[in-house]
Amino acid sequence: MDMDTLAAIADRVRQTHPLVQNITNFVVMNTTANALLSAGASPAMVHSADEVEEFAGLASALVINIGTLSSEWAAAMKLAVGVANKRPIPWVLDPVGIGATTYRTRLASDLAAMGPTVVRGNGSEIITLSGSVAAQGRGVDSLHGSETALDAARTLAARTGGVVAVTGESDYVTDGGRLIRIDGGHELMPQVTGLGCTATALIGAFCAVEEDRMAATTAALAVLAAAGRYAGSRAEGPGSLPALLFDALHKLDRDLLAGHAAISEV
Amino acid sequence: MDMDTLAAIADRVRQTHPLVQNITNFVVMNTTANALLSAGASPAMVHSADEVEEFAGLASALVINIGTLSSEWAAAMKLAVGVANKRPIPWVLDPVGIGATTYRTRLASDLAAMGPTVVRGNGSEIITLSGSVAAQGRGVDSLHGSETALDAARTLAARTGGVVAVTGESDYVTDGGRLIRIDGGHELMPQVTGLGCTATALIGAFCAVEEDRMAATTAALAVLAAAGRYAGSRAEGPGSLPALLFDALHKLDRDLLAGHAAISEV
Amino acid sequence: MDMDTLAAIADRVRQTHPLVQNITNFVVMNTTANALLSAGASPAMVHSADEVEEFAGLASALVINIGTLSSEWAAAMKLAVGVANKRPIPWVLDPVGIGATTYRTRLASDLAAMGPTVVRGNGSEIITLSGSVAAQGRGVDSLHGSETALDAARTLAARTGGVVAVTGESDYVTDGGRLIRIDGGHELMPQVTGLGCTATALIGAFCAVEEDRMAATTAALAVLAAAGRYAGSRAEGPGSLPALLFDALHKLDRDLLAGHAAISEV
Repeated sequence: MDMDTLAAIADRVRQTHPLVQNITNFVVMNTTANALLSAGASPAMVHSADEVEEFAGLASALVINIGTLSSEWAAAMKLAVGVANKRPIPWVLDPVGIGATTYRTRLASDLAAMGPTVVRGNGSEIITLSGSVAAQGRGVDSLHGSETALDAARTLAARTGGVVAVTGESDYVTDGGRLIRIDGGHELMPQVTGLGCTATALIGAFCAVEEDRMAATTAALAVLAAAGRYAGSRAEGPGSLPALLFDALHKLDRDLLAGHAAISEV
Repeated sequence: MDMDTLAAIADRVRQTHPLVQNITNFVVMNTTANALLSAGASPAMVHSADEVEEFAGLASALVINIGTLSSEWAAAMKLAVGVANKRPIPWVLDPVGIGATTYRTRLASDLAAMGPTVVRGNGSEIITLSGSVAAQGRGVDSLHGSETALDAARTLAARTGGVVAVTGESDYVTDGGRLIRIDGGHELMPQVTGLGCTATALIGAFCAVEEDRMAATTAALAVLAAAGRYAGSRAEGPGSLPALLFDALHKLDRDLLAGHAAISEV
Repeated sequence: MDMDTLAAIADRVRQTHPLVQNITNFVVMNTTANALLSAGASPAMVHSADEVEEFAGLASALVINIGTLSSEWAAAMKLAVGVANKRPIPWVLDPVGIGATTYRTRLASDLAAMGPTVVRGNGSEIITLSGSVAAQGRGVDSLHGSETALDAARTLAARTGGVVAVTGESDYVTDGGRLIRIDGGHELMPQVTGLGCTATALIGAFCAVEEDRMAATTAALAVLAAAGRYAGSRAEGPGSLPALLFDALHKLDRDLLAGHAAISEV
């Protein structure tokens, strides 16, 4: 896997505008939609049980993010995943804040058991979802660095049969066997809400255009890491970061990618 | 209809701060509120069945946007429209994503049958709502240029008894008879979420201060087209566009309007 | 109370990252989360009855904002407040738009009767909540300057047993006895949605790290007033203000605070 391959996947998103259905949280809907648009995808936020299945029949990928929950939405998530699995189309699970409440932990576990194509979380979230230890999250903040969750990520990937991504200062992607590390990003990124959710959404868009899920997930995280590093070096703080980041996603090419992110097989 | 007339309507919004009630989608609520504030209007997002009718009794215009639906919200939309029609105050319908699901198409049709003062949609949405062909949307993206929806727009206007606006690379406004074309805008605008919804919300604000609905709708679209062209020429990408666009809405005057948008009777 | 004391409270937020649970409205969730992150706090938006109590058991402060209501959310607000009062942790009430509808007025009154640590509103909202006159709001806009609500604020503070903040061109903080005035801010701030809600959320974060609620509330409002004045003087309009404001919250120190806000005992 090299930068040319990853840049080619990003280009394919821009050329084919895959329709990505998001059932995601209220905080990041706008951010997620704009990030997907900037990367060339076509986002749709459709979550009502009255239409979620029919829409999943049109989408090229599905993103499930449990950030702001309710019982109606949880039910709609399962309906949409059912359609995604049946067609099949790739779907990505973001177990936001798992461990903070029993309700959240149970729902995330139920969804993980439905076989997500990719799971993306921070260290604490992946450790909790893997069930390897009783990791206690603190809301959406990770108390564990991504590098401490690698065994948990492998265990979880073996269980779901899919890919697992752990994001943090460095990002890691595994299918239970191979392990790829992505470096890039910027220290301001955790001070902007929703950039983890943005990573998850981009993974959805990239999986819509690339059958090799390890490559698609790595490409999405490398693109965000590169855009984040590029934008972070120009930002005056967390307020000015998002606009610069979306501009960078929009203009990202092979050189910007290779110049601001690095990948390595671990 | 000339630029002086349109600029005068924009000024009236700024001077009288009309209260615009929005029952709109989660993705664009923040964007819509900021756009309305930048243009001088006073936005309120009130959608609970417990209060939606009482609030509609205070508002100067009502905006109904079906972007993110649920059955509770659909019911609240109809209650609010009932009050708007009874008082009456102008109300604007945005049939976001009609055609993507049966549920969405049925609700949009039900609302259109309640006689919206103005309907605003992209080409695919207006064609589907007019019922002239079974246009299939793909989420919120239009597969039809605005110019292909002119017959549909006229048909729909004749049916609702109101004004219909089709937006796209050029925008068109018709009451079934007259047809006005607005040019302006920028190619980056479709890569920012919610600018179509913003157009709809501005139409609501402008109708609140101008009885001539063709003029009000044209003024709102011309203002957004001018602000978008002005902002787009200064933006480095879709990330930096919204802030520049709201700044432009805030400072827009007759010269900025006339210098960045054009209208013509077709 | 001097600027060194207030700056020290702001520093403590940055050093300890208090977890602030928000049950707030859809319009401002993203803005609120980013403002809290920029100030160094750790925001979480958790509002489902299925988990709201368990999460309130983890949080260091709770923010209740009634901007966009529904009966489910109203019930969840009361459950979370019950936990906050029992532990106890500080909780802040923002009675957005009270007076606009009967439903809204009743819910805000019910919540005020549960003893909020701090209430924050504009002049009209505080007058209505105090019950001193039948002030009629017009959506979320205040028809009363903050200085006309000082008697109402004192009355309300005596009733809740907590602190009351009235924000406007000048901000005022009272515990029923003492009255502190904060000056700063910028005329563009009311043209950005959610900055009142941001004030409320910052008060929650600051109360999480400071037992003296008058000092915590004053510090939060002074920080926002200073950041707003600093950002406003650099903004080209309401569109560019938020990014500059969050950047200013991020880099705010004693000198920026003292140079852009003033406090006085009235």
